[in-house]
Amino acid sequence: MSKDKLILITNDDGIQARGIAALVEAMKPLGELFIVAPTEPQSGMSQAITVKHPLRAFASEIDGCTGYAVNGTPTDCVKLAMNKLLPRKPDLLVSGINHGSNSSTSVLYSGTMGAALEGCINGIPSIGFSHISYDLRENFDAALAYARKIAAAVLREGLPLYTCLNVNIPFGSENEIKGVKVCRQTRGKWQEEFDQRTDPHGRDYYWLTGEYFNAEPDAPDTDEWALKNNYIAIVPLRTDLTDYPTLDNLKNWIF
Amino acid sequence: MSKDKLILITNDDGIQARGIAALVEAMKPLGELFIVAPTEPQSGMSQAITVKHPLRAFASEIDGCTGYAVNGTPTDCVKLAMNKLLPRKPDLLVSGINHGSNSSTSVLYSGTMGAALEGCINGIPSIGFSHISYDLRENFDAALAYARKIAAAVLREGLPLYTCLNVNIPFGSENEIKGVKVCRQTRGKWQEEFDQRTDPHGRDYYWLTGEYFNAEPDAPDTDEWALKNNYIAIVPLRTDLTDYPTLDNLKNWIF
Repeated sequence: MSKDKLILITNDDGIQARGIAALVEAMKPLGELFIVAPTEPQSGMSQAITVKHPLRAFASEIDGCTGYAVNGTPTDCVKLAMNKLLPRKPDLLVSGINHGSNSSTSVLYSGTMGAALEGCINGIPSIGFSHISYDLRENFDAALAYARKIAAAVLREGLPLYTCLNVNIPFGSENEIKGVKVCRQTRGKWQEEFDQRTDPHGRDYYWLTGEYFNAEPDAPDTDEWALKNNYIAIVPLRTDLTDYPTLDNLKNWIF
Repeated sequence: MSKDKLILITNDDGIQARGIAALVEAMKPLGELFIVAPTEPQSGMSQAITVKHPLRAFASEIDGCTGYAVNGTPTDCVKLAMNKLLPRKPDLLVSGINHGSNSSTSVLYSGTMGAALEGCINGIPSIGFSHISYDLRENFDAALAYARKIAAAVLREGLPLYTCLNVNIPFGSENEIKGVKVCRQTRGKWQEEFDQRTDPHGRDYYWLTGEYFNAEPDAPDTDEWALKNNYIAIVPLRTDLTDYPTLDNLKNWIF
């Protein structure tokens, strides 16, 4: 792949995360890299934008590549990059590598995927990468190798406007991973259990915790199944949320 | 409608916003109300969740109804309500009335709709209401009347799991509004223009501003068209983001 491709790299764990350094290493052979990522971790920020305070961009090179840290959300990073920081429209946007999976319903809360959704709305082929491990010292070698292959395929083939890819990477070395599986978003949800505590002044506060519940654990066409069975899970996501079958039903309602 | 229906009310403009007071008034004849809304405005927060700090809930009655203000996002409010605050699972969740439209692509950034999406994942029939006007003194009489009709219809008919309604309300009195139109999400995007300024220390900062660009202004089955033509726009939204046609195409790719 020639150096004339411009690749925008972002994430939601912040510019200092190991995951973004791995993604920079993965993308280096594919083009010129331009990094715009949050100054601080932005996990769970979904596609949030900052409207209450202004944004600032701080020069922050990674491994010799031009980079900026922005005091906002991942989606802010993409918007500011597109409008103020990048020399031209990039050929590809990659977000990640997230520390923790963004499969199934988690995609809705994911800042990593918020950035990818923002990219594709703006006509940039966009991919979010997440590793199933929350261990900040996780070995990213296999993730790096697959991220490079998948990004090369997207640069070659393109993606439709308003569609991006959600890529989740299982545990294991490159040999242990069985390959790539294109799948759909698993139905499921987070079953929250708030950890309720009392502060020294006698007032309650609540920490969000929870466990993921898979509503269809045996469906082999889902991303959760792929990950459990040592496949890289690729789900194409669209930004049109319209539920078309329900739309047809609603036409018969009397309001 | 009997008082045995329990209705959870939230919003993203904060518990003190006029829009939520209008929604409380609209829902009063339909059941028992329980309000859990952010302490502060949370516009643009999408379906973000708070993971960096714990949540607190402050008793905050509205018009004689039980209410709590929570120092988090709209989605946090729904999660905390479901897990810690509500006496039982509600029969309906309504979010809004938002000051400003959440039609087309704006739905992706909307905290109002983040709360509705969160509700439907948890099996609660959920509706987000937004008024096209950003004027905090806007007359909500027509919005209130239509919100009541639409909520009554949802209580009667139910909604599928993982599907909620996005309702946008145009300008005008109840007589001027032509009725309800069930439609799809318009293709379009926000064309940002960051307002770049320099602080007294000589450093740049950027305020996010922008204009909405409608990619299909003449499509009569879209929510933007409905609003422009004085209809209430109802779009059913799903939480499964999978782009199924692209999924089939990707199966032919070589990675």
